[in-house]
Amino acid sequence: MTPEFDLIETYFTMPAQKALLGVGDDCALIGLAAGNELAISTDTLVSGVHFFADADPFKLGRKALAVNLSDLAAMGAAPRFVTLAITLPSIDPAWLSAFSRGFFELAEQAGIELIGGDTTRGPLSMTLTVLGEVPTGDALRRDRAQDGDDIWVSGSVGGAALGLKYLQGTVTLKPGVAERALERLHAPVPRNKIGEKLRGVANAAIDISDGLVADLAHICQRSQLAAAIEWALIPISPALLSVGPDVRMACALAGGDDYELCFTAHERMREAIAVIASEAGVPLTRIGRMRSGAANVSVLDERGNELNTAIAGFDHFSV
Amino acid sequence: MTPEFDLIETYFTMPAQKALLGVGDDCALIGLAAGNELAISTDTLVSGVHFFADADPFKLGRKALAVNLSDLAAMGAAPRFVTLAITLPSIDPAWLSAFSRGFFELAEQAGIELIGGDTTRGPLSMTLTVLGEVPTGDALRRDRAQDGDDIWVSGSVGGAALGLKYLQGTVTLKPGVAERALERLHAPVPRNKIGEKLRGVANAAIDISDGLVADLAHICQRSQLAAAIEWALIPISPALLSVGPDVRMACALAGGDDYELCFTAHERMREAIAVIASEAGVPLTRIGRMRSGAANVSVLDERGNELNTAIAGFDHFSV
Repeated sequence: MTPEFDLIETYFTMPAQKALLGVGDDCALIGLAAGNELAISTDTLVSGVHFFADADPFKLGRKALAVNLSDLAAMGAAPRFVTLAITLPSIDPAWLSAFSRGFFELAEQAGIELIGGDTTRGPLSMTLTVLGEVPTGDALRRDRAQDGDDIWVSGSVGGAALGLKYLQGTVTLKPGVAERALERLHAPVPRNKIGEKLRGVANAAIDISDGLVADLAHICQRSQLAAAIEWALIPISPALLSVGPDVRMACALAGGDDYELCFTAHERMREAIAVIASEAGVPLTRIGRMRSGAANVSVLDERGNELNTAIAGFDHFSV
Repeated sequence: MTPEFDLIETYFTMPAQKALLGVGDDCALIGLAAGNELAISTDTLVSGVHFFADADPFKLGRKALAVNLSDLAAMGAAPRFVTLAITLPSIDPAWLSAFSRGFFELAEQAGIELIGGDTTRGPLSMTLTVLGEVPTGDALRRDRAQDGDDIWVSGSVGGAALGLKYLQGTVTLKPGVAERALERLHAPVPRNKIGEKLRGVANAAIDISDGLVADLAHICQRSQLAAAIEWALIPISPALLSVGPDVRMACALAGGDDYELCFTAHERMREAIAVIASEAGVPLTRIGRMRSGAANVSVLDERGNELNTAIAGFDHFSV
């Protein structure tokens, strides 16, 4: 690491708070409260793949953390610590300052502490590793869905995918609608408070990063169950009301990047879930049911017939 | 992530052993034995910066893990878990297979378990996060060196830097010597067993990734002490005997990538350290002493005069 790159660390150093030892040694040191487990997840964002090279650095710093926090939310783990490895083509103080402000703004909101990382020279990318705490045995795993469970989704889906289509020029949107869709794409809100409250309530959970159907299919595969969801019940992003049915369905069912939670729970939990939604100020919507059968996802129309989802731009839901 | 990239996971999935939940969910889950702390470190390797684009993938997989294990060694932490985020320009099964064989060969030797990661498309790079366990309070921190401590170094230094100079074409070497130097560069051996045995013996430690003087200077800075080391005592790599004094000194004092340990210990620990060296089959060499004074490193000749280290290719040892 060149001295020039040492300078960067000034943007990414904070004094240790909950950590026993933070940035500045060979390793950080942390403890773990008795009776808890540690949940760990890693995600990389690459320029030109996960974001545009000219992306707003403030929003990018926030989003890089948000997509990682979302994995902790999907596990019901409380955010604790994060490492940030960032690779930069050159030193741009304005860019770095904005990126770190976005990162730390969300870190503070989420109560997560930066404990280490690495700064290297190369094509722009960043890899974060987040660590969260969850009481032993309470984690929301993908493999614990039960036959008959309700299927739920938080917030709304499809908005981020619409924003991406807009940026790619494959749809045209009115300014107000475009703004909403781009907000969903660039500033996802991880559902950590909801995830933590779902401990002991939900049986299985995942965050929607690849698309509602693809991610629900992961629960199916790991739990060895089928899922049937009703198209009419899916809380589509309001921005999708302004586009035709094909784009709407493609975005809502196969659009990634929403970072909402999809979870399953016994029907006796409906009231508890309504309370969680009310406390969080975020809709939690029941969209279908898990059932025995081959591990795949069916999308049903209002008459209970399987929808021809080929028009949605993907032709296999099986996993 | 495209289905094509899902395939990659076949190269990087192993069943959970010590982890409570391994690859395949939103997060991995781990526990921590009572009375222990968790040490965490992250390092990125970028193609064209930390390794050549045509580097042998088997050795690269091994080295990517080795440099991260070295951080745990420098902390005295026992290797436990690792995440691997790898960014690839394309899918090359032969490359991936060799990389994963190198990675897992060392993982098995070190007793560290892959619990998660991410595979993305983009310019070749990899970011690893390693987690190790250390009894509470026993970690070898940089900020705990004491006035009067002996300064020690494991193995030999400068060989990796000589290998790099050879590849860059700035030195010519006989084939046997070149081979030894390249081995040091491409296949560093992390000193985890030694690191763990130094708990309760060493006061401070660091691994030599940036060069002996630069890394010892980190101990000086964090411990607020000076260091004086004797040039004649430094265990230089045997490969350096075949080059002139300027290159020899530059490689031994300022050459990175050796991944040896530099540590400080009270003089009453000399016998214990000799035993550790003997058990590990790796020399541990006493090269100088910590003393009160400004946080910098002096290199002394056999008469105790400060060496003119400007010839070594760096002109400031202060930090």
